[in-house]
Amino acid sequence: MKSYPLKQWIYAQRPVGRVSETHYRLVTSDFSPSLADNEVLIATQFVSVDPYMRIQQAEKPTWEQPHPLNTVQGSAAVSVVVESNNDAFLVGDHVIGYTGWQTHAKVHGSEIEKISARDFDVTTALGVLGMPGRTAWFGLMEAGKPRAGETVVVSGAAGAVGSLVVQFALKNGCRVIALAGTPDKCAWLKSLGAHHTLNYNDFDDAAMLATRLGELGGIDVYFDNVGGVITDAVMTSLNLRARVVICGQISQYDGGLDQPELAPRFLHQLLYKRASVQGILARDYSHRMSEMINHVAPWLSVGDIEFKTSITQGFEQLPATLAGLFEGKNTGKAIVRI
Amino acid sequence: MKSYPLKQWIYAQRPVGRVSETHYRLVTSDFSPSLADNEVLIATQFVSVDPYMRIQQAEKPTWEQPHPLNTVQGSAAVSVVVESNNDAFLVGDHVIGYTGWQTHAKVHGSEIEKISARDFDVTTALGVLGMPGRTAWFGLMEAGKPRAGETVVVSGAAGAVGSLVVQFALKNGCRVIALAGTPDKCAWLKSLGAHHTLNYNDFDDAAMLATRLGELGGIDVYFDNVGGVITDAVMTSLNLRARVVICGQISQYDGGLDQPELAPRFLHQLLYKRASVQGILARDYSHRMSEMINHVAPWLSVGDIEFKTSITQGFEQLPATLAGLFEGKNTGKAIVRI
Repeated sequence: MKSYPLKQWIYAQRPVGRVSETHYRLVTSDFSPSLADNEVLIATQFVSVDPYMRIQQAEKPTWEQPHPLNTVQGSAAVSVVVESNNDAFLVGDHVIGYTGWQTHAKVHGSEIEKISARDFDVTTALGVLGMPGRTAWFGLMEAGKPRAGETVVVSGAAGAVGSLVVQFALKNGCRVIALAGTPDKCAWLKSLGAHHTLNYNDFDDAAMLATRLGELGGIDVYFDNVGGVITDAVMTSLNLRARVVICGQISQYDGGLDQPELAPRFLHQLLYKRASVQGILARDYSHRMSEMINHVAPWLSVGDIEFKTSITQGFEQLPATLAGLFEGKNTGKAIVRI
Repeated sequence: MKSYPLKQWIYAQRPVGRVSETHYRLVTSDFSPSLADNEVLIATQFVSVDPYMRIQQAEKPTWEQPHPLNTVQGSAAVSVVVESNNDAFLVGDHVIGYTGWQTHAKVHGSEIEKISARDFDVTTALGVLGMPGRTAWFGLMEAGKPRAGETVVVSGAAGAVGSLVVQFALKNGCRVIALAGTPDKCAWLKSLGAHHTLNYNDFDDAAMLATRLGELGGIDVYFDNVGGVITDAVMTSLNLRARVVICGQISQYDGGLDQPELAPRFLHQLLYKRASVQGILARDYSHRMSEMINHVAPWLSVGDIEFKTSITQGFEQLPATLAGLFEGKNTGKAIVRI
């Protein structure tokens, strides 16, 4: 039986504010698994680092119970098969699964999915052709229902989901206002074709941002990855029958989920405009992954869609990379290469 | 040319908090109208007093510009035709129109609608078979989309719209939790069949109310007439894919529309539950009035739907009756008889 040097990041303590390495414990061990029928041993290659992971760390139940303490931090990852007792998986196959922050894992074949031979890098399975792509596509097209000519505002527009929403909205003939946190991000979004870009950090408060948004005209669809004061500002500029899609509230993930911040009430704005707000999660559309891929992969293959991946090298960097999401550090999809 | 003793309440000053008689000016004059082709002279009999009127008095634009100062307070009213130069209206006909707080008005035939001969009191045109009925029916059935067996929570449940929502939800096979502000209102709602009634005023804060709502189980549809801390409490007990219908925010009408109150952020709750919030206005369904009447009138005629009307006597009582809405004084539909 072969032995593997297993490393695991154990989620050890609930963060009160910003998550950091102090909330994790790095455990190393020798791993000598024996495979039962249909089991597979995988070596992790690319680990997905996503904002939603911080939501699950909040004390209160969310879409499920809080992430249990003293277990391997859950996450999606792309791995390679190193041993197989399952005819569907050959050694060397690339697979995706929710296998977490560990260098190796013994999994049942039903827990992983082969990444089919495509003309794309395997990391796209964690990005544009994976969960973020699915979230952006269905969140915008089905919850946002954008019509050509309408104005779509996207917060967190330089992120994995946001940058796809910007491009999908442009493809749909919409006027796009992209909100991001640095001049570089704004420049990239402009290069993608966004009609207007606004750097949050150029505005002192929600009122100033609201004024600027007001000057740019009313909003038909607001795709919200950020929440907080940015969303406060948007809510006062909605057009009649506007659709607000709540995909993320990253500004609130440093503790605001456990003890909500106070903010101006806005429900009367929805009344005036007969506007709607819809919360979405990627999992709502899991069963329709191939439908998204059929739309997006052809665009990707001809360079009609741009997708950035920020790859950090080293298993040890996982907690810091997660924390970095909340500092606005990365553009596009954050991935750690093992 | 006959002369009429015309009385008019002129909307003279924007309220900062609670609206009262001090924001109005009572004007009396002799009114000797001459009727052009198709014009009609009407004498007001019943004036509708509705919470939305306070919204229009807010400084900021809402679904339209703020109610102009120094004009007759707008409102719906039931009147009787006293002179007619329009073949479609005979002297003695009852009509409904948006004719405002005045004892008489000269109107074009296109501005009024004859109240068709029904087995119902003419005031029902301002209530169960009028705007409140339409708001309750379409707001619940189309925006709320209740399914039999689901739990529907109604705030302001003893009001004109709320009491109909409670009964429509019960007819639809739903479990109904009715929220109101006095023991008498709760007792009435219980007699209508509400499964649970809660008196807001029994709870010190949103957290206490939230706890009680949590004990009663998750919420599938929240029909909100009230907003404020009641809505704060509800937002933490939504079920998966809950629908929140924003029909009114009466708790905020004493100035909170101009300078929004601060309240806990809740958009992350919508994310967890993939819940939606939809603002509605009665006017969205104006063209479908007969559809609502076809559903509701048969129930009303056999006593299957109960509708309370609080009638105050005297034109002079209009401002005080409007103010009373914000003190939780009335049950059912507030009407002033001229």
